[in-house]
Amino acid sequence: MLKNKNPLMSTDRLLAFSDGVFAIAITILVLEIKLPKHEDLILSHGLYNYLCHLWPSYLSYGLSFFAIGVYWSNHHWVFTFIIKSNHVLNMLHIWFLMAISFLPFTTAILGDFILFDEYKSAAVTASCVGFLLPVPPVFIIYLYAVHKKRLVAKNLNQKFIDKQKIKLLSGIVFSALALCFSFNYPNVSLIIICVSFATFLLPPDAPVYDEK
Amino acid sequence: MLKNKNPLMSTDRLLAFSDGVFAIAITILVLEIKLPKHEDLILSHGLYNYLCHLWPSYLSYGLSFFAIGVYWSNHHWVFTFIIKSNHVLNMLHIWFLMAISFLPFTTAILGDFILFDEYKSAAVTASCVGFLLPVPPVFIIYLYAVHKKRLVAKNLNQKFIDKQKIKLLSGIVFSALALCFSFNYPNVSLIIICVSFATFLLPPDAPVYDEK
Amino acid sequence: MLKNKNPLMSTDRLLAFSDGVFAIAITILVLEIKLPKHEDLILSHGLYNYLCHLWPSYLSYGLSFFAIGVYWSNHHWVFTFIIKSNHVLNMLHIWFLMAISFLPFTTAILGDFILFDEYKSAAVTASCVGFLLPVPPVFIIYLYAVHKKRLVAKNLNQKFIDKQKIKLLSGIVFSALALCFSFNYPNVSLIIICVSFATFLLPPDAPVYDEK
Amino acid sequence: MLKNKNPLMSTDRLLAFSDGVFAIAITILVLEIKLPKHEDLILSHGLYNYLCHLWPSYLSYGLSFFAIGVYWSNHHWVFTFIIKSNHVLNMLHIWFLMAISFLPFTTAILGDFILFDEYKSAAVTASCVGFLLPVPPVFIIYLYAVHKKRLVAKNLNQKFIDKQKIKLLSGIVFSALALCFSFNYPNVSLIIICVSFATFLLPPDAPVYDEK
Repeated sequence: MLKNKNPLMSTDRLLAFSDGVFAIAITILVLEIKLPKHEDLILSHGLYNYLCHLWPSYLSYGLSFFAIGVYWSNHHWVFTFIIKSNHVLNMLHIWFLMAISFLPFTTAILGDFILFDEYKSAAVTASCVGFLLPVPPVFIIYLYAVHKKRLVAKNLNQKFIDKQKIKLLSGIVFSALALCFSFNYPNVSLIIICVSFATFLLPPDAPVYDEK
Repeated sequence: MLKNKNPLMSTDRLLAFSDGVFAIAITILVLEIKLPKHEDLILSHGLYNYLCHLWPSYLSYGLSFFAIGVYWSNHHWVFTFIIKSNHVLNMLHIWFLMAISFLPFTTAILGDFILFDEYKSAAVTASCVGFLLPVPPVFIIYLYAVHKKRLVAKNLNQKFIDKQKIKLLSGIVFSALALCFSFNYPNVSLIIICVSFATFLLPPDAPVYDEK
Repeated sequence: MLKNKNPLMSTDRLLAFSDGVFAIAITILVLEIKLPKHEDLILSHGLYNYLCHLWPSYLSYGLSFFAIGVYWSNHHWVFTFIIKSNHVLNMLHIWFLMAISFLPFTTAILGDFILFDEYKSAAVTASCVGFLLPVPPVFIIYLYAVHKKRLVAKNLNQKFIDKQKIKLLSGIVFSALALCFSFNYPNVSLIIICVSFATFLLPPDAPVYDEK
Repeated sequence: MLKNKNPLMSTDRLLAFSDGVFAIAITILVLEIKLPKHEDLILSHGLYNYLCHLWPSYLSYGLSFFAIGVYWSNHHWVFTFIIKSNHVLNMLHIWFLMAISFLPFTTAILGDFILFDEYKSAAVTASCVGFLLPVPPVFIIYLYAVHKKRLVAKNLNQKFIDKQKIKLLSGIVFSALALCFSFNYPNVSLIIICVSFATFLLPPDAPVYDEK
């Protein structure tokens, strides 16, 4: 009767649960776009005008949808070579998902206040914090999983592992930079965010395995 | 050590994620139907009357539910012959899901304002835009996947592929038509939408494979 | 090159999509319980009192959660012997899910107005309609699937099939009865609903297969 | 033609449904954080201040997210050795999920009123009730499943089974204790909750199987 604390598990349910959280976080973004009331329509001279003036909300909807989509796609890619899970990874994952689920809130702040000069920089800061929050858990999950090839295939190439580490680190640097600029130069900050998400349009490296 | 940029993946997680987004978008439609407050009930002389006068919301709920359902069913069908995924398809998919998730917003607009003469055409326009948005990504996903039989079975019949292309194109034409009419003839527009969704009640073509 | 209109499909994605819709419809019920504002708390002399006076909302939350749970469990059971799907079943399913997703709305109406004598019967009627709506699609899905053993195992026992038909019919009768009583005797109506859902606590019949 | 009432089923759909409910309950927590209106911003002297003063909402978001995450992780672990389901387990599960889905409501109460001295203890009580509600169904599900090894592997070690029973019992004791303290010593109560959830950061026991 041997006891094995923290045994390996399959990633099936972890992925199902994560896909659920991603799907919901990405879909409820739309609930943050405000529906007009009759007073609003009188103020904006009609429904066409009202809907057109909502463009900052559409923009922040699009940006956040794309951001969560990129996190999902990246998560998908990482879990093609993280092939096992355990209790610690599950708990780290909860932390990661907590950050992802927070994005609809910061998105709504951005969409509601970006057009108001006095609130713009605070709105962009909030948004940067939102985009930055998932980065540390992603990094720690990665380090935890690849340490001594704990949860990855034993023949996963070490150079490949190290290269991804550097890429993830650069993600942290970019997000931190965007955050710093947001206080005084919110536009610079938005550009950094857009550019750094756009780089994810390129396909990630395919995992490399050593021949045995 | 061979590097393969943009490697093929299984469609498992893409489908799980999509089913999640479809399920949420279709279910939160109901949140857009307004619950009465006590003042509303006094104005409408009772709860029976209030609930009966909500019929435009029920109608737009039904229409949008059916529309997302049709998109789901069509997606289901397309992914019986698109059998592989890659990074580009994933990102195109995010675009498609972004359009699907936007439908609850345009639905709510339609349900809230269709009975007001001064807002009716704007509400129908918004709704047409909502129904039109998923069409371009669907078309591009299809073209990308079947180009040189990139992500479909190698023996999928070429005539079948071309026929579907034409069907999808006709979908674009219908949606664009509905949008054009919406500005001046919102009723015509609604009829076009209902008819073009109704055609999806017919079963789609079964995929045809060449014998080897 | 043989064309087969309306080909059989596996039920995998249909079930994944349905589970998603069930899960969301059942979870957003809680969003219909009203959070207090500061004025509410002063009116109700404190938070304890406020939370205690919400009991009709808790009751309608519990009832609706149980109702959707019963529908899910029943769906689960039906799809142990409906083993294939096709386009028509998919579309009928959209109709069924449309009815399930509508329940959070009627639930909220019930919870908000059951304590007001002048609105009680309307609230119970709305609730009965909500519980009745999924019954016709369930019945039609069942008839469609078992007709000439179209989507069930060929050796599923015919007596078993007929017996379930009668059970489903009795469900329709009970729901219709509850609806009729709701206009004048809302309490009778609520009792019928509770009793008819309670019968689902008993395990359903196990599918019976003929020996070959 | 043998009838078998309450036959065993695979746990596939039960787990898919549960993962859906967990994912939604955990993700809609963020909807309970209040978005500012323009008046709020004037009152709080700007958006930065407003967002900083929301810290009780962030805290209660974090706590509840972690709590639901712990329930999910525990559920995941329990269902590594509960390997079959039946109708009774399904219905007990509905009860369990009903309690999980209720958490976003008590979370919102905690976040909104913890800073107000006159409402604090009621808010903490509500929150304790929220955390306590899932405990009885978890305990009953466990007892039902392991009774005569009904739904677990026949060679699951009996000592292991009994040990988990005691652990679950201690969970009940802790939650009840937190509830008792909440009326007069809400802070003590919060500490008990945090500590008892923190113990779940440790990996659970790996299931032990007898050799045959």
